[in-house]
Amino acid sequence: VELRIAFVGFGNVARSFARMLSERRAHLDEDYGLRWKTTAIATGAHGCITSDVGIDLVEAVACVERGGSLTDLAGTAAASGSAEVVAGCKADILLETTPLDIVLGEPATTYVRTALTRGLNVVTANKGPVAFAYAELKAIAVERGVCFHFEGAVMDGAPVFNLVERCLPGARVLGFSGVLNSTSNLILTEMEAGRSFEDALREARRRGITEVNADYDIDGWDAAVKAVALANVLMTADARPAEVDRQGIRGVSIADIESARADGNALRLVARGERSTSGTRLTVRPERVPSTSILGSVRGTSNALVLQTDLMGEIAIIENDPGIEQTAYALLSDMIAVHERAARR
Amino acid sequence: VELRIAFVGFGNVARSFARMLSERRAHLDEDYGLRWKTTAIATGAHGCITSDVGIDLVEAVACVERGGSLTDLAGTAAASGSAEVVAGCKADILLETTPLDIVLGEPATTYVRTALTRGLNVVTANKGPVAFAYAELKAIAVERGVCFHFEGAVMDGAPVFNLVERCLPGARVLGFSGVLNSTSNLILTEMEAGRSFEDALREARRRGITEVNADYDIDGWDAAVKAVALANVLMTADARPAEVDRQGIRGVSIADIESARADGNALRLVARGERSTSGTRLTVRPERVPSTSILGSVRGTSNALVLQTDLMGEIAIIENDPGIEQTAYALLSDMIAVHERAARR
Repeated sequence: VELRIAFVGFGNVARSFARMLSERRAHLDEDYGLRWKTTAIATGAHGCITSDVGIDLVEAVACVERGGSLTDLAGTAAASGSAEVVAGCKADILLETTPLDIVLGEPATTYVRTALTRGLNVVTANKGPVAFAYAELKAIAVERGVCFHFEGAVMDGAPVFNLVERCLPGARVLGFSGVLNSTSNLILTEMEAGRSFEDALREARRRGITEVNADYDIDGWDAAVKAVALANVLMTADARPAEVDRQGIRGVSIADIESARADGNALRLVARGERSTSGTRLTVRPERVPSTSILGSVRGTSNALVLQTDLMGEIAIIENDPGIEQTAYALLSDMIAVHERAARR
Repeated sequence: VELRIAFVGFGNVARSFARMLSERRAHLDEDYGLRWKTTAIATGAHGCITSDVGIDLVEAVACVERGGSLTDLAGTAAASGSAEVVAGCKADILLETTPLDIVLGEPATTYVRTALTRGLNVVTANKGPVAFAYAELKAIAVERGVCFHFEGAVMDGAPVFNLVERCLPGARVLGFSGVLNSTSNLILTEMEAGRSFEDALREARRRGITEVNADYDIDGWDAAVKAVALANVLMTADARPAEVDRQGIRGVSIADIESARADGNALRLVARGERSTSGTRLTVRPERVPSTSILGSVRGTSNALVLQTDLMGEIAIIENDPGIEQTAYALLSDMIAVHERAARR
């Protein structure tokens, strides 16, 4: 059987994933028995299409990248919009990568809810659904017997959620600390090298790693939403982004960085989760950490997450210099997990 | 159904695991439906016993820790030795933690081979079987339809083998570099703090982290065997420890460490695996790494492994200040995996 894939959102990450999937078609069949076809693609600016026989993914990528409209592709039917595709497409798995409103978690959360309720497996690279509605969405997935995967929500395809679920059975996460926002970390480490805040921010924009509105990076929103996602999933908290005690890097000066360095420290935007008697306490703020510590060793766009656990003590996972392929890989790894679960049944 | 467990080797790690298992009996049943009983324990100095109705594990731990003989435990039958227990015990899973001859990989490799051939699942904390006979043992396990797990062989219970198998599907490991020997790393970092090589080695012995013969740590044998285990499993090499280009830390002087530090570097005993045209090239040697790098940030008995992959770029996993519980946890995590596979059938 073929896994029928529907895309909602077809930006850089989704197209990088589409290329990865197309290039590895033979490998995925050989190694996992995973066969697939694309039955829907919904975009904001390049039209929405469905096809029962299957859309040529390579052609779809090329079409969008030359600025065309997907509705020109042969053998496809036009759909009126993303919501219609999510509500009606014939698919086994929805790949959700729409641009996120980080304050509301929409439209991603609605798309994920609709698809899960319809009995579709959902793979998303968005942090919004997990940060704003994890308990609800997970309950729907369990009830409908489908998968809800979101490895790409934090640290791209580096295993974070899957690490705990698949590799730390029986262990309990007691707390975490992490450098999770690439833009802030690039700015702080470029400032260590003597560049101004503004120059460093320009560099982050040039690399295409900032949120659409870079204030969400600089003011700690992105890190806060990720901290909530981690707390909700790994520590069974039921937190919301607005509850995070949040301070970004906007006020950090070269003098702050120099002063930290004089003491053998580095400034990092650290997201923390700790169990307390009143629940889970979440903070995001610039912290002085030893330059030779794990968090201090994280430079540029790299990310790191340190987990405190009961049985396995303290372990950390680091992602070095991620690119768009590493986010795309999160989707691939989640899609393989969906397939393997289906194959076991 | 109950999983019948046989222990061969009942030293510090196995007893720590036995305590963990006993304390979590109710949790394991609730969370995983995992019920178990102990049907055999084979030790070198405290006798060998079997029991169809089940051995009281708490009593067995107490008996060995007060220096008694297991054959005194009520309701058990004496067996003549470890080999007899491995060859004849009625069990579903063998927990292998015997002291390893690091040059020959025995007797662990023989015990594992015998048990797998008999159709028992095997969980081992020994690196020997994986370094000396991985391809052969894996083939037997596949043929018999049983599990062969060994997460504890490298970096204790920190996910290394499981990380790649369970969390990086579809990705290929291209190479690795790691700080994998706790004794060497403790010595090097204590020397950074001004202690002599001999004092630092004494400290490592005092903490009980050295191999029985500490030369195997200092001369890089332990790291070499671990590098081979990683290469054989993660890079489908078929290497042997003698093939590793190996240099230990015996020749390292305080002057070497000071000279590295003057350049912003730290000395670490680094194990590396790289694909080359002629196969997999494996090295273990003291290297200068930047003090603020991932490997440089690893101090004391901590371990780190950096993996280069095709799809997921470079990721690293770090284990901070491991204790005996973290090795015991490797056994627990592997045992849960055995149970879950059995439950799926």
